[in-house]
Amino acid sequence: MNGADTLLETLVAAGVDVCFTNPGTSEMHFVAALDKQDGMRGILGLFEGVVTGAADGYARMAGKPACTLTHLGPGLANGLANLHNARRARVPIVNVVGEHATYHRSLDAPLTSNIEGFADPVSAWIRVSESAEEVAADGAAAVQASMTAPGQIATLILPADTAWNDASGPAAPLPIPAAAEVDGSAVSTVVDALKSGKRAALLLNGDAVSEAGLRLANQIAQQTNAVLLGDTFITRMARGAGRVDLDRVPYFAEDASQVLDGLEYLILVGTKAPVTFFAYPGRESHLTPEGCTPLTLARPDENVLGALEAVVDGLGATNIQPILNEPLTPDMASGGDLTPVAIAQSLAACMPEQSILVNEAATSGFAIPGATRGAPPHDWLDLTGGAIGIGLPLAAGAAVACPDRKVFALEADGSGMYTVQALWTHARENLDITTIIFSNRKYAILQVEFMRVGAHNPGPKAMSMLDLTNPDLGWTQIAEGMGVPARKAATVDEFNKALVEAVNHKGPSLIEALV
Amino acid sequence: MNGADTLLETLVAAGVDVCFTNPGTSEMHFVAALDKQDGMRGILGLFEGVVTGAADGYARMAGKPACTLTHLGPGLANGLANLHNARRARVPIVNVVGEHATYHRSLDAPLTSNIEGFADPVSAWIRVSESAEEVAADGAAAVQASMTAPGQIATLILPADTAWNDASGPAAPLPIPAAAEVDGSAVSTVVDALKSGKRAALLLNGDAVSEAGLRLANQIAQQTNAVLLGDTFITRMARGAGRVDLDRVPYFAEDASQVLDGLEYLILVGTKAPVTFFAYPGRESHLTPEGCTPLTLARPDENVLGALEAVVDGLGATNIQPILNEPLTPDMASGGDLTPVAIAQSLAACMPEQSILVNEAATSGFAIPGATRGAPPHDWLDLTGGAIGIGLPLAAGAAVACPDRKVFALEADGSGMYTVQALWTHARENLDITTIIFSNRKYAILQVEFMRVGAHNPGPKAMSMLDLTNPDLGWTQIAEGMGVPARKAATVDEFNKALVEAVNHKGPSLIEALV
Repeated sequence: MNGADTLLETLVAAGVDVCFTNPGTSEMHFVAALDKQDGMRGILGLFEGVVTGAADGYARMAGKPACTLTHLGPGLANGLANLHNARRARVPIVNVVGEHATYHRSLDAPLTSNIEGFADPVSAWIRVSESAEEVAADGAAAVQASMTAPGQIATLILPADTAWNDASGPAAPLPIPAAAEVDGSAVSTVVDALKSGKRAALLLNGDAVSEAGLRLANQIAQQTNAVLLGDTFITRMARGAGRVDLDRVPYFAEDASQVLDGLEYLILVGTKAPVTFFAYPGRESHLTPEGCTPLTLARPDENVLGALEAVVDGLGATNIQPILNEPLTPDMASGGDLTPVAIAQSLAACMPEQSILVNEAATSGFAIPGATRGAPPHDWLDLTGGAIGIGLPLAAGAAVACPDRKVFALEADGSGMYTVQALWTHARENLDITTIIFSNRKYAILQVEFMRVGAHNPGPKAMSMLDLTNPDLGWTQIAEGMGVPARKAATVDEFNKALVEAVNHKGPSLIEALV
Repeated sequence: MNGADTLLETLVAAGVDVCFTNPGTSEMHFVAALDKQDGMRGILGLFEGVVTGAADGYARMAGKPACTLTHLGPGLANGLANLHNARRARVPIVNVVGEHATYHRSLDAPLTSNIEGFADPVSAWIRVSESAEEVAADGAAAVQASMTAPGQIATLILPADTAWNDASGPAAPLPIPAAAEVDGSAVSTVVDALKSGKRAALLLNGDAVSEAGLRLANQIAQQTNAVLLGDTFITRMARGAGRVDLDRVPYFAEDASQVLDGLEYLILVGTKAPVTFFAYPGRESHLTPEGCTPLTLARPDENVLGALEAVVDGLGATNIQPILNEPLTPDMASGGDLTPVAIAQSLAACMPEQSILVNEAATSGFAIPGATRGAPPHDWLDLTGGAIGIGLPLAAGAAVACPDRKVFALEADGSGMYTVQALWTHARENLDITTIIFSNRKYAILQVEFMRVGAHNPGPKAMSMLDLTNPDLGWTQIAEGMGVPARKAATVDEFNKALVEAVNHKGPSLIEALV
């Protein structure tokens, strides 16, 4: 067996059994090894941003890494924006990046580049295999690094000759280190703060917004009157009927301040102290109010659930029944032109149990959290790193991880275009994804932000950089050109009909919602 | 005026008058400054790979930089693959990358990343402006760096507060350093080698494949019987009737060796010694044959035309009339199913004078160079860095630079999908681009390379990573969804009809050629 064979066997033995890929010549031995390895599923993306975004979605839902396979520096580069998002999501991913053969690297052939340089800003772990004999052990180390709490990006660079040369055999999986336990003094400090009678909030992300984490947080909140808040953008959250309700820190600083003002303790659980997404002239970037003490209960890389349990114990709140959302399924919206509110209502009315909502709806998505509060239990995935263009790939990865669950990709038109090639993968793999494009034909957020940063009223040249008309995007044509059945909806009735059809159909579809 | 205003005035004063952009919140003051600055045209791309690829195409045809404007690290990252290509093309580009305000950078907000890290592998020059007062001078320095021979990528990182804070005024353009003159001893060594009677070839790229460079090279060839060869991939070449003919070093090593074997001198003019594109097991990576001495006449950053003139002088070949291609316009292809050969023939038959051919046709493009040898004079632009996904953006930039010339984007289907969003820019700017998609529904080059690297016959899993069926891409739908009129052609007659229509129409169109 060659190096590529040993790497694949090693990955499969370590539980990595999906490879999202867009390979090239230097990866051909890895592709050949796929043929021999029943345990690894290969999924092609037509652009590397699809590949890496799908790996993120897969990791969020499977709780373990997929591997990606990309072609030298530029192939990796095309996937970097979604790896940035994945780094912010704190998920495990194993990138395998093909490189020129070891003896070819110094020749400065056209595709030669500084792959480690490209990988560095997004990777917690980088290694270059220097011989076929090292590849298997490097692969095992990459999986271990990726699974180190809370989840990391590991990038293994594989010169072509290390893939094609003979190698002895696969490497055994390495142990996954447990997340560090939270220090007892952190717990007692938080317990004391919560008992002090001062106004406190728990700010949650990571495992703290899992179903179990939210139940523990709710016990704490009931015992102490602390407020529960989620980060503005979260990796994966349990929501809907039978789950603990959770408000989020709003996106805009003014709104966030209203929520946070008056707090005396901000207790950080699986996250860090909040800051504004962008800086604005004359405005404070820190969101922790003056006079409020931030207390870290658990960093993202620590045992978040264990820390919450310890606080529940410390407060004597173990027997408190968590307050859960009642089921509340609205009727489908009715009549008139389509609006974001109507979309949210109809979605809540007909989304099946255990749906996965992928949220990259940007400004058009404001009504969805409220409408789906009492909807059947579901998971919610956000854009975590601010690099738009993750929604359609993220949905692909989530659907691969959870083939029996319905995935809704809630997608702004501007964001959707970044990695529109993902629709082809939806079709090719027959993924059960309903994509709803909120087609407002503009970068609406930028039209808001243009004012907020204190620029003057945009003139025609500036406006033309922020709008998506001239020409309008024809999403149904684009989707059908990539094999995804699509409907256009300008009225609520048209939308409802298309949505019900999509929900009753297992497989990909797209609704172009003119809002 | 603020920092953004001073930067735009500085860029315009230095001759930079086109900005390809995909901005975000941190770039809003730059966008606002566009409104006030008549001298700068702003062109929106829906993905940053479009932005950077267009800047490359613009630079190749305009001989000066455009600027790009992208949004923090991930926005730049999306443009890196085409910046890699631009680096290999040795063209000038000024990247302006928005960054968080100086005081916001340390807060690790979601979009924070190591922008300099992303920029480093592709940039010859990087600077971060640290105050509004520095922005103008930094902009002038960026233009100077980009125009330093032979053309470089300059990346200026612009924290938002350096754009919105007050600044004194623009900076004056800095002098563009002339390319270094070639050392006299290099010239005399080459002259001696050419006079030695040994078998020699000149390997050309850069200015050596301009109309003037090729005439000089041809005088040398006539005087000495040296062979003229172009690099496998060139930035911009003058071709067609009335131009000097030039064969290229073939892509595959076996074919390249046949062309190069037996040479005793390989004289490098605006390029470096050739190597294989990839390494292959058991095959030599260097292409210079054993016993052949490579001689550098002029490096890419030296005065290539001056060096060729000096050699012509030294050989006493000044009065030799260059041998030029005779006009040879074939009839349109006729009858039967569409093939790559028929496409090449029909294209040669009806392409207008001064057309620009953008070649990312990959394996399907083999017949085009031969067919267009005697076609009306035209320019030819290649993919220079091997990172597929440049053709449609490159065509956009070339069309912006040369609004009175017809651009043909000759595009493989696999490559075209990488930056398919460029079609929307073709439509929005009403660019005179005829895109021909060679739709063979596979990564054909990889099916060849799979065998060549010595992998076994691909099985179904491997094959599925190399084919683009299931579903077939519907290019006419995709194009029309982005506002580009499109036709599908399965026969020569259908293709001819669509091509003639496209040639007679000023504006974007696309032909999906089923080959």
